[in-house]
Amino acid sequence: MNELVIRPAIMDEIPAIVAMLADDPLGAQRETLEDLSPYYAAFERLDQDPNQHQAVAVREGRVVGTLQLTIIPGLSRRGSTRSVIEGVRVHADERGSGLGTRLIEWAIAESRRQGCQLVQLTSDVTRTDARRFYERLGFEPSHIGFKLAL
Amino acid sequence: MNELVIRPAIMDEIPAIVAMLADDPLGAQRETLEDLSPYYAAFERLDQDPNQHQAVAVREGRVVGTLQLTIIPGLSRRGSTRSVIEGVRVHADERGSGLGTRLIEWAIAESRRQGCQLVQLTSDVTRTDARRFYERLGFEPSHIGFKLAL
Repeated sequence: MNELVIRPAIMDEIPAIVAMLADDPLGAQRETLEDLSPYYAAFERLDQDPNQHQAVAVREGRVVGTLQLTIIPGLSRRGSTRSVIEGVRVHADERGSGLGTRLIEWAIAESRRQGCQLVQLTSDVTRTDARRFYERLGFEPSHIGFKLAL
Repeated sequence: MNELVIRPAIMDEIPAIVAMLADDPLGAQRETLEDLSPYYAAFERLDQDPNQHQAVAVREGRVVGTLQLTIIPGLSRRGSTRSVIEGVRVHADERGSGLGTRLIEWAIAESRRQGCQLVQLTSDVTRTDARRFYERLGFEPSHIGFKLAL
């Protein structure tokens, strides 16, 4: 396998990122590939926010993975800063290659570099493999994740 | 009962906010009231970030509730913006008064005003009353919340 690089995404990579977001049992119902304009608008907002990191994993010039890392300062836990991981995706061709682990390890290292004391994420209860995956990486399933659609 | 106001916190309210964060079965182990300097430093960072809203509920000039609302733009769900609620606390004197509901309703209304399509939060599985509370407010316990301490 050729070398993998994990780095901030650039605008030109939006189509590849959105294709991965959609190529997923839950994402397939939520994303639209016909009109990418809402994704470009959201990316511009992310790109201007120093607490937002849309990362891509790139192998041989091809985007094969992505996640969003958000840095959240806060008062709780003695003024701790935490990070939140969202939208983790690995390209179908790369599943089972350990790339998911590489992406999460990148997010943990980046969180540490930015002074976070806690990394958190939520995973849909229907993603049965995800629980084992995150537990293997040291995450504790200590919370219930609630969502309210507006 | 006198009128309740929910509004952004000011620096002078940090001691009252931290006292509420600590007056809690989990918070008691995590917070320190002796040295407030890390809380003031964190508040300055929150105050400068337009996506952060540290709210307080005030009755008769007294801080009786708090929560942190974070606005998170993102690519997933067609470039949706979501909000995250953290650190919800109601003063011991006000528990059972409906103030928790008022605080969450404020956070939902503020999220809507800021164009969010989703509100999310996690609650420690040991907080047994919280699940019913959030479900009553329309939240779905659809996710597992994972945490990794750094």
